[in-house]
Amino acid sequence: MKYRLMTPGPSIVPEETLLTLAKPVRHHRTAENKAIMSEALSLLKQVFDTKNDIAIFTSSGTGAMETAVATFIRPGDTAIVISAGKWGERWSELCKTFQANLIELKTDYGKVVSPAEVESALKKHPNAVAVYGQLSETSTGVAHDIEAIGQIVKKTPALLAVDGISGVGAMECRTDDWGIDLLACGSQKALMMPPGLAYLSVSEKAKRVMESKPAPPTYYFDLRKYLAKAAENDTPYTPAHTLIAAQVESLRMMVNHGMENVWKDAKTMSQAMLAAVAAMGLKPFADVPTAGLTTIVVPTGVDGATWPKLLEQKYGVKVAGGQGSLKNKIIRVAHMGYVDAIDVIGIVAALEWSLQELGYSVQAGMGVTAAAKVFSASFVPPKS
Amino acid sequence: MKYRLMTPGPSIVPEETLLTLAKPVRHHRTAENKAIMSEALSLLKQVFDTKNDIAIFTSSGTGAMETAVATFIRPGDTAIVISAGKWGERWSELCKTFQANLIELKTDYGKVVSPAEVESALKKHPNAVAVYGQLSETSTGVAHDIEAIGQIVKKTPALLAVDGISGVGAMECRTDDWGIDLLACGSQKALMMPPGLAYLSVSEKAKRVMESKPAPPTYYFDLRKYLAKAAENDTPYTPAHTLIAAQVESLRMMVNHGMENVWKDAKTMSQAMLAAVAAMGLKPFADVPTAGLTTIVVPTGVDGATWPKLLEQKYGVKVAGGQGSLKNKIIRVAHMGYVDAIDVIGIVAALEWSLQELGYSVQAGMGVTAAAKVFSASFVPPKS
Repeated sequence: MKYRLMTPGPSIVPEETLLTLAKPVRHHRTAENKAIMSEALSLLKQVFDTKNDIAIFTSSGTGAMETAVATFIRPGDTAIVISAGKWGERWSELCKTFQANLIELKTDYGKVVSPAEVESALKKHPNAVAVYGQLSETSTGVAHDIEAIGQIVKKTPALLAVDGISGVGAMECRTDDWGIDLLACGSQKALMMPPGLAYLSVSEKAKRVMESKPAPPTYYFDLRKYLAKAAENDTPYTPAHTLIAAQVESLRMMVNHGMENVWKDAKTMSQAMLAAVAAMGLKPFADVPTAGLTTIVVPTGVDGATWPKLLEQKYGVKVAGGQGSLKNKIIRVAHMGYVDAIDVIGIVAALEWSLQELGYSVQAGMGVTAAAKVFSASFVPPKS
Repeated sequence: MKYRLMTPGPSIVPEETLLTLAKPVRHHRTAENKAIMSEALSLLKQVFDTKNDIAIFTSSGTGAMETAVATFIRPGDTAIVISAGKWGERWSELCKTFQANLIELKTDYGKVVSPAEVESALKKHPNAVAVYGQLSETSTGVAHDIEAIGQIVKKTPALLAVDGISGVGAMECRTDDWGIDLLACGSQKALMMPPGLAYLSVSEKAKRVMESKPAPPTYYFDLRKYLAKAAENDTPYTPAHTLIAAQVESLRMMVNHGMENVWKDAKTMSQAMLAAVAAMGLKPFADVPTAGLTTIVVPTGVDGATWPKLLEQKYGVKVAGGQGSLKNKIIRVAHMGYVDAIDVIGIVAALEWSLQELGYSVQAGMGVTAAAKVFSASFVPPKS
């Protein structure tokens, strides 16, 4: 059975990228590899829409998040965390590990934290070293208004650290214009790669704060070393250089397609999915849906554990369920990275078939018709 | 030109393993992936010759080393470091990062630290929390007598933490019999994989010490979480699961060949290289050569920067030069992992040709004859 990986990480990896991974391994401390690193960094900057320097870590995305905390937070420093789901909670856990004075702006799952709340917290805590948040909160499918939050944080001494792990490449993200000082990303979501690499862009403002702090209590995630080495197209420790070479292939596809187009495509796919969800009488879980991911409330009468299993076992469509308290209450269907309009229409059909099979009343073709109408106004060509 | 990667990491990756890396990506939180993790852990235990639990990190080998320090060393704790080269110095840097009371047993590059020195340091510092050292010191090519050191450390409350990154799979290493409490390894050396994964085996003694310590000052390298998840064939953070699946292929080759044979092959290749080195009138740099790597002193009259360049550019043989103060003074030829007798004979021929070309007087065939004689007594079949 054809397998379609529609989870919010990992996501489908293009064939050209996979083939790059199968190439014979060469040494990593060579002019040839520096050229690959240089291209990777240049492409990442285009995808991040930034002139800032970027560190490449061999780790999961959490490694880049840890670096964004360990570099800047010393015991007692105030850290404001925007917490709208599991990944906001990860920022909080990291801040606790590094003994921050933690100010949590917590909201219910499915809701977003507003820019006004961030503004008020910064007024109350003018010494805050950083504001940590998610561009896209993968656990609930909401998108934060990082543009507006950036305009607020920019006027203060605080840094804005954004987890863009499931957002970058799936929704508009203008690092420099929006004032994102630290943007964390991972390879395995909209950047169309297997897991193994994490990225962190670092603004000049963040560098100044970094230089004012004593050495961080970490060796592997010592950002100072990564930035110094990145300036020479190198890394402080042995990088997963075959993954970096493959990442270049996927990034090239995105940049060749144009980031404006990448963002527009993702938005259209999200609109098509949301139209299908409404047409099928279902409800999205997210108050403000992120572009790369649609979270759907499991309707009454349908078993939340059975639905994703059926989708996988009968239709080969792998979606994610809910995590923690959302277990069996939502499903999460990703449409990020190497996914296009034709994929989305097919996935919507599988949602229809599976719901009918589980006894949920949905008129055949309602979902696909609604989705197809959205696309017909704005066809999404696949990246290639 | 055919390229032969003969550096002490990364090393040649078998074709079957490379092809595994090109397979379509599936989700990582599945029964299917747990089965892969389970096999990886079981194979790693066989390669490490241990019953201890093993943590798999998505990081370079340094990540596993950092974990071996961060988990056990709190400010002021005494750490004894065996330092015979760049990688011994890495242990020291890590111990400094975590504010250890650092006792360094330092020796000149090319020499080893003796078990007697370790014994005497432990007597002087009975409260030492751990002894850190290298099985194979990759920067100089020496092997430490970890078996004897293990017998000494075992009798004390201290833990024995061994960096086996370039040693495991290239030389005998009996984790349990020798009393190695923490064995760190990386994917990209004798384990025949690209870089990206690191491993750490943890003894019951180490677990008891871990449990007696407060939470470590790290989130990503929190060993407690990795061990808890490994018990369920899982990881706390998104693993580079496509690398783990490929690692299984390479580990299977080793285990099918039999670890005794793997170790014997590496030893024979080392003996053949050393016989060739002597026959060519060259000198090994290492007092006690490790099995996976031969370090050769650049002879008088030969330019130490030109020699490896010529080997690479004319013969496609990529060897490593010296690092730091050894720059241009030695070359390092690895014969670990997916390398056999036929490869070694060919590499020796390239050494002969390149030396003749650089004006060093060596009688044609002396090296290859000496190496071939060693092998004829004990032929090394390739792993497959």
